Amino acid sequence: MKKGDNTIFCLKDYMLCKKERVEKALERFLPGEDTYPPAIHKAMRYSIFAGGKRLRPILAIAAAEAVGGHEEWVMPAACALEFIHTYSLIHDDLPAMDNADYRRAKPTSHLVFGEAMAVLAGDALLTEAFKLMASSLFTEAAKERAVLQVIKEVAEAVGSRGLIGGQVVDLESESKLVDEETLFYIHSHKTGKLFCASVRAGALLAGADERQLACLTRYAENFGLAFQIRDDILDIEGNSKKMGKSVGNDARLKKATYPCLLGLERARKVGKEAGERAAEQIRELGENARPLQELALFIIKRDF
Amino acid sequence: MKKGDNTIFCLKDYMLCKKERVEKALERFLPGEDTYPPAIHKAMRYSIFAGGKRLRPILAIAAAEAVGGHEEWVMPAACALEFIHTYSLIHDDLPAMDNADYRRAKPTSHLVFGEAMAVLAGDALLTEAFKLMASSLFTEAAKERAVLQVIKEVAEAVGSRGLIGGQVVDLESESKLVDEETLFYIHSHKTGKLFCASVRAGALLAGADERQLACLTRYAENFGLAFQIRDDILDIEGNSKKMGKSVGNDARLKKATYPCLLGLERARKVGKEAGERAAEQIRELGENARPLQELALFIIKRDF
Repeated sequence: MKKGDNTIFCLKDYMLCKKERVEKALERFLPGEDTYPPAIHKAMRYSIFAGGKRLRPILAIAAAEAVGGHEEWVMPAACALEFIHTYSLIHDDLPAMDNADYRRAKPTSHLVFGEAMAVLAGDALLTEAFKLMASSLFTEAAKERAVLQVIKEVAEAVGSRGLIGGQVVDLESESKLVDEETLFYIHSHKTGKLFCASVRAGALLAGADERQLACLTRYAENFGLAFQIRDDILDIEGNSKKMGKSVGNDARLKKATYPCLLGLERARKVGKEAGERAAEQIRELGENARPLQELALFIIKRDF
Repeated sequence: MKKGDNTIFCLKDYMLCKKERVEKALERFLPGEDTYPPAIHKAMRYSIFAGGKRLRPILAIAAAEAVGGHEEWVMPAACALEFIHTYSLIHDDLPAMDNADYRRAKPTSHLVFGEAMAVLAGDALLTEAFKLMASSLFTEAAKERAVLQVIKEVAEAVGSRGLIGGQVVDLESESKLVDEETLFYIHSHKTGKLFCASVRAGALLAGADERQLACLTRYAENFGLAFQIRDDILDIEGNSKKMGKSVGNDARLKKATYPCLLGLERARKVGKEAGERAAEQIRELGENARPLQELALFIIKRDF
């Protein structure tokens, strides 16, 4: 067996193992379907358990481990990040926004539960996320300060100057020609900020020092760009069955994408360089940071 | 001048003074209208500055003062509570929910900014609220623990088992006959939980002990009931001009209310008793708790 194959196999194992533990924790942290009033809890669970790569929780856990922390320290915050990601998808899919019928090969929340319940399920997941973050209590005062810092950074990342800001500019840009600067704003805010907050959350809760935080932040910025470019490319040439979602949505909604701005080949090159640059940033963290490094190199080649 | 008149005059002064300081803090804590992207910040500010009694921030401040705390300790959390209240109104008014055209005598957010922006403005205010709470940093470790406790309690109060749960049951109950238990669930969750969290937030940040917290919690529960019953009565016999909103909405939407369940006279009596019981609960806190006491007695007589 070649060394390369072996490396890919290891990352897959790591991802599968972490994904399974995140799923179990999500199950534990979410109110049961029968919790009163059941309608809202059914809707929350439907979207959380509709699939997904659990990339944000895994990034948080891998970042914690990269600086010597443990999975269990960050699991509540990691699951909170998945709650927030899911809330943003439910609201993005609403008729007033992208008006999407399918998400992860399943009918979207508002088609199953109605529009009112979809709005409320998103609201509830966002709220529950902050409750979960605040519940990751530690006995040491230093850790409590880190939890507050994480809540602040995550809220900043997904607020009106973060993820929501990106969604606003994205909506305003539909059917318009946008320049590279605007496109970069949209993606770095809609997708990049939460990736960045995920990596930093894991690192902060594991007690990372300033130097470690700085290189992990650069990692996450490049990771976000690489991820988004690959996402755009897959929307053009991906296999909808393998991805569990329809392709060609960007063209249908006349969304700005990297391939349509840079051309497919150049977009591919920029994405590859961003992934490699991400991996490069955390070389100094040594062997503990290997999962993060390989994840960045995998993300530019993924086909789902 | 009679003592009674003098008492009412003092409460009015207190409320006006606190309201003014809350308005100034809201102005300070919200991103400016020109902050990029301006569309979302205009929408957030429109709803926050559309008026309102600022009752939740005032309750938080008054509760802090009732146990010897200072206004400035709780101002960020107090404003966060107003952000959350406003987010809940924006989403409640959406076409898929109550489909309201006016709120505080002004067109609702979705009529002015469109439905997508109204959903996002609500999302952003909720997110900003948690950022603001987490930003109320203190140097003492004990206070940081209190901030985390406040975030947890507020999120619990407005989550799927709190305010959102109340809204779900309210939506499910439209055009249906509901019993007293369901009606109490709706109101204690839609309105009561956030009042309770406001009072407790102020007290927790001011370092209240268990005994003080317990009587303030009972105060807030009774305050919430008194407030809601008066709200229901005003929707029947209130002056829409004075209240800054249309009356008769509950009847139009066939909403369950206390007067329709208990009859107007009995509802009035139950509301009055709840307000008096609220005031009674905090007698032992002495002179510092006088604003809270008078507020509970005022709330059952208010005509706006």
